[in-house]
Amino acid sequence: MTGHSQVISVAKMRGNLRKTVDDRVAVEEPLEIRLGYEVDGERQTSSVSITMRTPGDDEDLATGFLVSESIIRSPDDIVVVKPCSGDNAIRVELESGVDIDLERLRRHFYTTSSCGVCGKASLDALRVIGVEALTDGTRFPRDALLRLPERLRESQAIFDETGGLHAAAAFDPYGELLIVREDVGRHNAVDKVIGALFAAGRLPATRLGLMVSGRASFELMQKTLVAGMPLLAAISAPSSLAVELAREFNVSLVGFLRGDTFNIYSGEERIAK
Amino acid sequence: MTGHSQVISVAKMRGNLRKTVDDRVAVEEPLEIRLGYEVDGERQTSSVSITMRTPGDDEDLATGFLVSESIIRSPDDIVVVKPCSGDNAIRVELESGVDIDLERLRRHFYTTSSCGVCGKASLDALRVIGVEALTDGTRFPRDALLRLPERLRESQAIFDETGGLHAAAAFDPYGELLIVREDVGRHNAVDKVIGALFAAGRLPATRLGLMVSGRASFELMQKTLVAGMPLLAAISAPSSLAVELAREFNVSLVGFLRGDTFNIYSGEERIAK
Repeated sequence: MTGHSQVISVAKMRGNLRKTVDDRVAVEEPLEIRLGYEVDGERQTSSVSITMRTPGDDEDLATGFLVSESIIRSPDDIVVVKPCSGDNAIRVELESGVDIDLERLRRHFYTTSSCGVCGKASLDALRVIGVEALTDGTRFPRDALLRLPERLRESQAIFDETGGLHAAAAFDPYGELLIVREDVGRHNAVDKVIGALFAAGRLPATRLGLMVSGRASFELMQKTLVAGMPLLAAISAPSSLAVELAREFNVSLVGFLRGDTFNIYSGEERIAK
Repeated sequence: MTGHSQVISVAKMRGNLRKTVDDRVAVEEPLEIRLGYEVDGERQTSSVSITMRTPGDDEDLATGFLVSESIIRSPDDIVVVKPCSGDNAIRVELESGVDIDLERLRRHFYTTSSCGVCGKASLDALRVIGVEALTDGTRFPRDALLRLPERLRESQAIFDETGGLHAAAAFDPYGELLIVREDVGRHNAVDKVIGALFAAGRLPATRLGLMVSGRASFELMQKTLVAGMPLLAAISAPSSLAVELAREFNVSLVGFLRGDTFNIYSGEERIAK
C-alpha cells in the first residue's frame, strides 16, 4: 500500500527496556480540492477545500466531498477529475450546465485547515508566524508518563458516561494533570486546554506537556508547538506529518502510551529514566 | 456536568435480547467564534470559525483557538470574551492596538463546517438543499451487523500496520463489505466511500449501510443522509446531534457495535432479527 504508510525509526519503551525499531506511521498530507465551473459563459476555478488526508483514492475523496456537500449529484456533472501532479491538489472540472451556488461555496467550503497550505509550505508558514524550534531542557520521567493514561481516564467523568468524548490535558513533569478538558472534537479539547493556560497567563507553557486521548495529527502537533509545550503524548498513533513537524521543531512526541509501554518518535532527550 | 451529555432512550441489543434503556450521549452543538477588532480606527467583526463542539469552557475554546492560530499572543490582547446568549456564538473583542492579518483570517479561518450554520438551522439547511427523510424499507439482519466489525478489521490492512487510520465501508444487508477506505481523517474515509459509490453510479445508495471505525458525529450522519444510505453503524459512540439528525430524517443509527452487542439510536424497524 505505497503512499499510505511510511517507515520511521522509533524508540520503543517497555518498562525499563528501550529498543530502536523501524515502525510504520500513517501518511498524512494536505490535499487541495479545486473546482472548475462555468459562470456566465466564463470558466472559473475555486479552491473549495484543503483537507489533511492519507494519499490514495484522491479522485473518490474529491467527488465524495462534492457529493456530500450537495454540489454535484450525478457522474454526468463531471467532465474530468485530474490530480495536479506534484502539487498536492486535485481538480474537478464540471460540465458547463451545472449550477453552482457561489455563495454557498464561499460560506461553507473554505477550510479551517490550520495549515491552509501544502506540505513543506505549512512548516515554513509556522516559521513565518514566528514559531521557532523549542530549545528548553524540561525533562519528563518515564514513570510520570506511564501514569498519565490512568489519570486521564479517572478525570474523564463524562467519557465514562457517553464513550463519545475526546480528552486533552496539560501535565507537569511529575505526571500531575493540571488541566483536563473534553469535547466531541479532539482539536476543540486541545484548544480548551490551551485557552485555559492562556487565561492563567501560563503561555508559552515551556514546562508542561500536552496529553491527548486519541491520535496525534499534524494539527494537534501544531497546537502543541504554538503553545510552546515541549511534549505531546498520545494514547494512539501519530501521523507521518505530526512526526515530521515534531522532529523539525524539536518537540518530543510520544505515542501508543498504554500499560507499561510507549513509543518515542521525537525528542527522546526529554524523556528521563 | 450539565450540558456535556444528554439522556436519550436507546435499544440495547445483546445476542437475541433487546432492552430499552436510558443512556447518555455527548452533546454536540455548533459554536461560532466571532472576532471584534479595529482597522483604521473602525471596529469590525468577523466570523472566524464555526466548529462542532461539546458545550462548556467556550471562552477557553475561543481563546485557545485564537492562540493556536497565532492571532493573539497575550491576555492583554483581549478586551472581553462574551457568549452571545441563545445564539451558539461567542465574541472575542480585541484591544485596538492588536494587529490582525485580515488576509490570513480570510484564508485560514473559514470553516469546513459542513453545517455552516447553527443548531436547528443546519437541519433546515439540509431540507433546503432537497434532502428528505428516508422512506425505504431495506432491512439489515442483526447477524449481518454483528459480523461487520471483524470484517472491517480484516480489510483494514493499513490499520494493522500503523494503528493510525480511520476506516469507513459500504455494506449490503448480508453484511458484505462492498467498499472499504481508510484515512487519517474519518470524514475523508467516508468521502472516499461515497466518491467510489458515486463513480460506480450507485448513488443514492438506498440499499447499503455505512460503517465507520470510530464515533458517529453530526458530520458523518449528514454524509450518510446525503448519500441516501438508510443506516450508519459505528464502532463507538454517537453524538447528540447525530442522534437528532438520524431521528429527524429517519436514518437508522447503530453505535457501540462490538462483540455480540450494539445500541440502536434511531430507525430500529430496519434492524431485522
